[in-house]
Amino acid sequence: MKLKFRCDCPITSSLDIFGDKWMLVLVKLMLINHKRTFKDFIESEEGIATNILSSKLKFLEETEIITKTKLPDNKKTNIYKLTDKGLDLASAIVEIGSWGLKYLADEKKDSLKEGDINLFDDKENLINTLKHKYKVEMAM
Amino acid sequence: MKLKFRCDCPITSSLDIFGDKWMLVLVKLMLINHKRTFKDFIESEEGIATNILSSKLKFLEETEIITKTKLPDNKKTNIYKLTDKGLDLASAIVEIGSWGLKYLADEKKDSLKEGDINLFDDKENLINTLKHKYKVEMAM
Repeated sequence: MKLKFRCDCPITSSLDIFGDKWMLVLVKLMLINHKRTFKDFIESEEGIATNILSSKLKFLEETEIITKTKLPDNKKTNIYKLTDKGLDLASAIVEIGSWGLKYLADEKKDSLKEGDINLFDDKENLINTLKHKYKVEMAM
Repeated sequence: MKLKFRCDCPITSSLDIFGDKWMLVLVKLMLINHKRTFKDFIESEEGIATNILSSKLKFLEETEIITKTKLPDNKKTNIYKLTDKGLDLASAIVEIGSWGLKYLADEKKDSLKEGDINLFDDKENLINTLKHKYKVEMAM
């Protein structure tokens, strides 16, 4: 797939790929919540519409951030998994979450758990744990 | 300003604010390239349209990621500066750039400079340097 980039900046170019409302949310749902089927994504609290989900999953596949496979014992259901390229978005996602916890806390006080905030104290450990847990879970 | 969030997740909520094609690009142009006027942004290599730029700057101001001021000796030109909340997006921006350098290199080989890639070897140092340089430059 030939991608179109606005300019040569690697930051802007990354955002040409996932700079939208959904791409990183879907990666997060896979990485942190271990969602992996179309139904899993549809039922997530973010409430994505089916047509948008289809097009975003297709683009994530085309950009090799995820792969689509089947389970050996269920040939009907598509299973979406993060590739290494997708897993390496963990650092950016953790930094985005850390910023959100720091700056959106006032507006969303009720919903932030103390445990979540402590998790972000050691971001490197959090990133490694998320990646490791994901690989273990997806190998099952 | 009352923001609307899709759900309680701090990652998704952050992306409700800056999950689009332009918001983090504008923050990057300020943080790394020290752009600060409307004209600066318009002339950037990303090629943003004036109406989109106006609406994005307004939203960045409303969400307190930037502030709008004037220079003492030039009351006509608006100067846009990152707040501490905006500066704290440096970590996410550096992670996004690091991912871009790693994974978009094949597609953009000609435009990536060796020096850029080395910069990202020590991300913590890069983040601190960017923040420090920005503060020094904007205090001038």
